[in-house]
Amino acid sequence: MRINDTTPKQDGYYMPAEWHEHRCTYLLWPEREDNWRENAEPAQAVFQQVIQTIAKYEPVVVGVNVSQYAHVLEMNMPNVQVVELANNDAWIRDCGATCVINGKGRLRGVDWKFNAWGGLVNGLYFPWDQDDFIGAKMCAIEGIDRYRTSDFVLEGGSIHSDGEGTILTTEECLLDEGRNPEMSKEQIEAKLKEYLGAEKVLWIPKGIYMDEDTNGHVDNICQFVAPGKVVLAWEDNEEDPQHERSQMALDYLESQTDVKGRKIEVVKIHVPNPITITAEEAAHVDQIEGTFPRRDGDRLPASYVNYYNCNGAIILPVFNDEHDQAAIDTLQELFPDKIIEPIYAREILLGGGNIHCITQQVPKP
Amino acid sequence: MRINDTTPKQDGYYMPAEWHEHRCTYLLWPEREDNWRENAEPAQAVFQQVIQTIAKYEPVVVGVNVSQYAHVLEMNMPNVQVVELANNDAWIRDCGATCVINGKGRLRGVDWKFNAWGGLVNGLYFPWDQDDFIGAKMCAIEGIDRYRTSDFVLEGGSIHSDGEGTILTTEECLLDEGRNPEMSKEQIEAKLKEYLGAEKVLWIPKGIYMDEDTNGHVDNICQFVAPGKVVLAWEDNEEDPQHERSQMALDYLESQTDVKGRKIEVVKIHVPNPITITAEEAAHVDQIEGTFPRRDGDRLPASYVNYYNCNGAIILPVFNDEHDQAAIDTLQELFPDKIIEPIYAREILLGGGNIHCITQQVPKP
Repeated sequence: MRINDTTPKQDGYYMPAEWHEHRCTYLLWPEREDNWRENAEPAQAVFQQVIQTIAKYEPVVVGVNVSQYAHVLEMNMPNVQVVELANNDAWIRDCGATCVINGKGRLRGVDWKFNAWGGLVNGLYFPWDQDDFIGAKMCAIEGIDRYRTSDFVLEGGSIHSDGEGTILTTEECLLDEGRNPEMSKEQIEAKLKEYLGAEKVLWIPKGIYMDEDTNGHVDNICQFVAPGKVVLAWEDNEEDPQHERSQMALDYLESQTDVKGRKIEVVKIHVPNPITITAEEAAHVDQIEGTFPRRDGDRLPASYVNYYNCNGAIILPVFNDEHDQAAIDTLQELFPDKIIEPIYAREILLGGGNIHCITQQVPKP
Repeated sequence: MRINDTTPKQDGYYMPAEWHEHRCTYLLWPEREDNWRENAEPAQAVFQQVIQTIAKYEPVVVGVNVSQYAHVLEMNMPNVQVVELANNDAWIRDCGATCVINGKGRLRGVDWKFNAWGGLVNGLYFPWDQDDFIGAKMCAIEGIDRYRTSDFVLEGGSIHSDGEGTILTTEECLLDEGRNPEMSKEQIEAKLKEYLGAEKVLWIPKGIYMDEDTNGHVDNICQFVAPGKVVLAWEDNEEDPQHERSQMALDYLESQTDVKGRKIEVVKIHVPNPITITAEEAAHVDQIEGTFPRRDGDRLPASYVNYYNCNGAIILPVFNDEHDQAAIDTLQELFPDKIIEPIYAREILLGGGNIHCITQQVPKP
């Protein structure tokens, strides 16, 4: 049921950290031919790998359009449930519900208004009507009540929570004119606190270079690894435009404390060398008017920070790059009890995001 | 996940009786204009009443086509979850999964092959592809494994279980040439026993008069009220074709014992006086080629036995008929601890079934 008159904070709910134990993980199945090359078949193969890897550690629910339902059902993957979820594309981090918990073993969902990363201003496609129902449908399948923010647009990839009252986000995304142009930064911050049950918001200035799809989602540049501690996508080369963005984030974070007064400890993870779309890759996307183009030579917003932190494992995008091993090693040090599961994720990146963007956790309350 | 190599019986699972405690009830939302008059709006009003009545007693899950999703979601009904379930029509008793339990608190689903009550021989519509996925999707939402009978067609409305190893069905339906024409009665009986974890099948000869849609489903003529005890739709008037059918069922049942050796005790519930479709009602169904017609003057298969036995209540179809009160009184005597919830159900009957046909329970394991 939709809860109309209160907020999660008023009701004692908050967003746990991603490492809080999960009941399951949701994904959507990629299909649209104007975003995924070759009828999305190469992307589907990688999504399937991500699904089956996560399913080794926790239950997975895959939402599929009617058109692909029989196909995915027939895979009969262990620990994977295949449900029907009409969608406009496969980024459930952004269009799905953000689950919040209270201290009494209860779970609810926050069903953000979704407008395809910028609506008619700078959104990626039109329409986005089915994506905007994903949050409600996730809550219905989970059998949980939901809060709906009819007057506030947000994507799950633009926030991280430490589970103790501190939220990470970026100014580049949340202050972009495509989402809530009538709201001030203070008003947006107040919404985050109300709906995530938080007390403090840390505003990193910018996301990853060329993350134009999402206007710089935080989940591609920075992620909590513990309260008071983050990993930051880093670039040593001062000639690379990424360097300045990473340096701005570092300077900001090192000047801040979290809600408990802790200084923020920053662990750098170097980004891969620049990755661009090849002519071959661009040629097999069905380019149409009104959809964000995938063009030969465009640089992709590749980052190891877009990993997914599930029960017992870190599902890590890798790129056959010289920096892969350092990312693996750093995360293994940060999470000594977890298995690092590297997945070659270029196909997901070609579609505009990565493993964190295509997953959405449901915490165990 | 689909279980491929075993049957429920082999794995220790069986179908509990309908009065076994439920986790929830599933329904589908009616929509098709060639079966439900006036764009299905009058039917939707009664379905909503059924949903909200059941939701007073147990959680309800309503499956809705994408086209009607926003409409039903907006009703925001307490204790009701609205999920997406593409369907060809709204008879989840027949196209949904039959849940089976074991003695160890586990639940699974039987996902019968569905062919719209007779396939290309005498089915009600074409195609029925989306209906045939409902069982798998129900299991996915419930997070349970399923058995799929790819080589055996059955609808849930054609069986009842006493939960102790005895199944009720009708010869008229299960031996009809539209379902499993290549199988003998013995082979069909063996399938029922394997997939319902049963030991004995009672074969009532015929269903209710004019139940041509379903070829005489048992759930319109007879239902267990306890092990060894049934209610039977009855007609006193020997001139009415229903009389002979009811008498045949009575004679058969009184000659039988159940799997425990009990004689079958039969409680009669008189059917309402004959109900026919009015010219006004028929005029507002969009008649098209290939769909079972709803014609002025056609007699409808009205029966009180098509009630639904949920937690704490009997959801009973009534018809503003002189026999309504006797049906209410009889069921109240049989279920003294349950509330009898009569619902005026002519609109559901106009579509070809009644309250039992539009509901499907998920037992609490």
